[in-house]
Amino acid sequence: MADRSTPPGKRPATPSGKHPATLDRSQLHPAVSDPALRSMNFLNEIMGRFPDAVSFAPGAPHPRFFADLDVPRHLDSFLDHLVRTRGLSRDEAQLELYQYGPTAGLINDLVADMLRTDMGIATTPEAVVITVGCQEAMFITLRALRATAEDVLLVTEPGYAGIVGAARLADMEICPVPESPDGWDVAELRAACRALRAAGKTPRAAYCVPDFANPSGAAMDLTARAALLEAADEEDLLILEDSVYGFTASPEKAPAPLKAMDRSGRVIHMGTFTKVCLPGVRVGYVVADQLVHGAPGGGSSLLAAELTAIKSMVTVNTPAISQAVIGGLLVESGGSLAERSAALSAFYSGNRRRLLEALEQHFPASARAEHGVRWLAPAGGFFVVLTVPFPVDDTLLEVSARKYGVLWTPMNHFFAGAEGGTHQMRLSFSYLDPDRIDEGVARLADFVRRQAVGV
Amino acid sequence: MADRSTPPGKRPATPSGKHPATLDRSQLHPAVSDPALRSMNFLNEIMGRFPDAVSFAPGAPHPRFFADLDVPRHLDSFLDHLVRTRGLSRDEAQLELYQYGPTAGLINDLVADMLRTDMGIATTPEAVVITVGCQEAMFITLRALRATAEDVLLVTEPGYAGIVGAARLADMEICPVPESPDGWDVAELRAACRALRAAGKTPRAAYCVPDFANPSGAAMDLTARAALLEAADEEDLLILEDSVYGFTASPEKAPAPLKAMDRSGRVIHMGTFTKVCLPGVRVGYVVADQLVHGAPGGGSSLLAAELTAIKSMVTVNTPAISQAVIGGLLVESGGSLAERSAALSAFYSGNRRRLLEALEQHFPASARAEHGVRWLAPAGGFFVVLTVPFPVDDTLLEVSARKYGVLWTPMNHFFAGAEGGTHQMRLSFSYLDPDRIDEGVARLADFVRRQAVGV
Repeated sequence: MADRSTPPGKRPATPSGKHPATLDRSQLHPAVSDPALRSMNFLNEIMGRFPDAVSFAPGAPHPRFFADLDVPRHLDSFLDHLVRTRGLSRDEAQLELYQYGPTAGLINDLVADMLRTDMGIATTPEAVVITVGCQEAMFITLRALRATAEDVLLVTEPGYAGIVGAARLADMEICPVPESPDGWDVAELRAACRALRAAGKTPRAAYCVPDFANPSGAAMDLTARAALLEAADEEDLLILEDSVYGFTASPEKAPAPLKAMDRSGRVIHMGTFTKVCLPGVRVGYVVADQLVHGAPGGGSSLLAAELTAIKSMVTVNTPAISQAVIGGLLVESGGSLAERSAALSAFYSGNRRRLLEALEQHFPASARAEHGVRWLAPAGGFFVVLTVPFPVDDTLLEVSARKYGVLWTPMNHFFAGAEGGTHQMRLSFSYLDPDRIDEGVARLADFVRRQAVGV
Repeated sequence: MADRSTPPGKRPATPSGKHPATLDRSQLHPAVSDPALRSMNFLNEIMGRFPDAVSFAPGAPHPRFFADLDVPRHLDSFLDHLVRTRGLSRDEAQLELYQYGPTAGLINDLVADMLRTDMGIATTPEAVVITVGCQEAMFITLRALRATAEDVLLVTEPGYAGIVGAARLADMEICPVPESPDGWDVAELRAACRALRAAGKTPRAAYCVPDFANPSGAAMDLTARAALLEAADEEDLLILEDSVYGFTASPEKAPAPLKAMDRSGRVIHMGTFTKVCLPGVRVGYVVADQLVHGAPGGGSSLLAAELTAIKSMVTVNTPAISQAVIGGLLVESGGSLAERSAALSAFYSGNRRRLLEALEQHFPASARAEHGVRWLAPAGGFFVVLTVPFPVDDTLLEVSARKYGVLWTPMNHFFAGAEGGTHQMRLSFSYLDPDRIDEGVARLADFVRRQAVGV
């Protein structure tokens, strides 16, 4: 491990002048070299280097909705709630925020109520685990479901890098399945399951973002959802539903979450308060009401309890202060985030239309025909995928940032298996002010035109 | 997966009346059935069932030190600090607390300064990763270091269940080594490394709590620390130093942390603000200044950057709100927690003496000789281990709780390998008011006396 043969002069000295031991990357878990884990760092780094660029890169929520946040007030509201509902004194309630808390969470009752009210998901506080963002929910769920090296997670391709990264850390093999414009392609899913079984593997679960997937924006209608659930039953699969962009649907058009349609307990539902409330508290959740038989002393438990056991060795518990901020927001809004979601949805829909209009304006039909530039118009979410007539990658992104002052995400970051998305870029419209969207698309059009003709 | 042969009547209905799919424990990662992951849940559960018992079980900090906490003020102080040191407007600083933040952390500079000032550890912000408590620091470090099935983590036995649980989740084999009263026994450590190599394994790292280990209270003096570092060099091992109880040492007697003595970069240092500040924010850290060669594009990186890549797929980042509370506390105390630590240390020393005096009083020399009751007097930490003349386990703990109103932790929870600690209980003195310690030991003495004579 210590590379004693390296001359000391070749090692950068630490601040204290010591020469630290060196490691080789081959001595570390292979995940650290996986593209899924490198891409997020790369994107953060390039945004930091070009702070004045218009960035279509990050899928972060728009800060305008932070204006009415008031952390001390939310903490107070949650303390009031604890006093009212749990018979605690104010001091005892305060202690709940400062001391260690239950690993499964402190606001499970409020979250279960919100899921029932806002999403039609009937569940109990005991089936909910509060997590450090949706990412921890994904990781602990995959860690639980990966029992042997044969267990496989099915993901759409393109798809969210976070689920692939979590699978890498859990040493869980993934099987990428091409995504259709309607999300999961059930025929492809069944074919993949058959092929996996023929190869001696066990398809355990399929990850699904039914509402406006990241990066494609694909959405599944009710028929597609029902077909997916039926396939899950027949293929003996669990569905890991990620509801992160569901709130951006027009309220009257939002299909029921898979979990609300789930008649046979196939769905493990995951969500986050990051986009609807704020990222700075990192509060997510997982609903896992499946029964697990074969406990050491006999009897059964909820899968949520098994996820809680895993969480106890990853983060012990989600910070009580963070949970209390979300708890306070929920209490203040009468247990429902529907009104807040509707306001956010209206804003993001406006941004989406603005981006689509700017694309129409800067890439008129003649130019689109000539250069083969094209895009689909999603009905929600945070993203539009642009296809261009030349290959794009991280190197070209750097050119775009330096010479044209505009950032985007190369779509190849969202392909875990074979090469893909080579001529595509993901444009995020969530984070930008509307006028910056216009400016950004003008810059992008300039870049694409010059790149297309080889200037 | 779905157990369709089970009659519906045997399955508890979910609230909506659905019958969820059932799983078998054998289909889940083996860690969920590991004693290291079950014991924490068991202990929490029994504390919940016997709220009026005097509990020597939890290693939680005493709430008296929460009295001067003021979350809104700490957030304010940290915002001021951001404005002052990073040239941000107040609104921009506020945004740092609400939006996504850097995966490696937001308060790395303050933590690096504190480590230098309070502990003599020279490091840079870039070598620090802020984590969701020390538990996440352990997990991401083990995940990074476990490259192949041959990699082994050495732990003392008895030892902290959290490191064993993290190793289970990382599928990392552990090798328990008997602990001496002076902590790591270097001869035993070397013998274990030799035996592992002879068996084709790779000893990667040894976990070490040099100051008042949990559960034993063992402490390593300077000579023992130097010997451990020398052995690490010769055996090509990393040392994972956990400094959680270091602050309880008398300031004039505290030996330097291993990391401050580390001349060859063998030590990865971990810590937490849970005991010195508060658990409710779950903020810990890891210092990993080792160089990693062999990056995909050539060149090298700090191990901290690799841990950051892993963290990005576990929790994305530590909640900014949590970090800001700790950042504010650090700013308000001039960048050092030494004064706060000294006050806490004085209190915990008082509780420790009170427990030891109560044991002397309730188990006088005659009774100790007759029944073989004994204990060692640690010089710090949160725990005293009591040896009794009868075997103790979870069943007996339940008897103690129900009939005698006193809780403790069976020492067998801290043995990961062979059976051990069968006649021992861990008594935590951190959480109790001094007069409750007296009452608890009186109840405990009653229980032990009756149990010893078989009443």
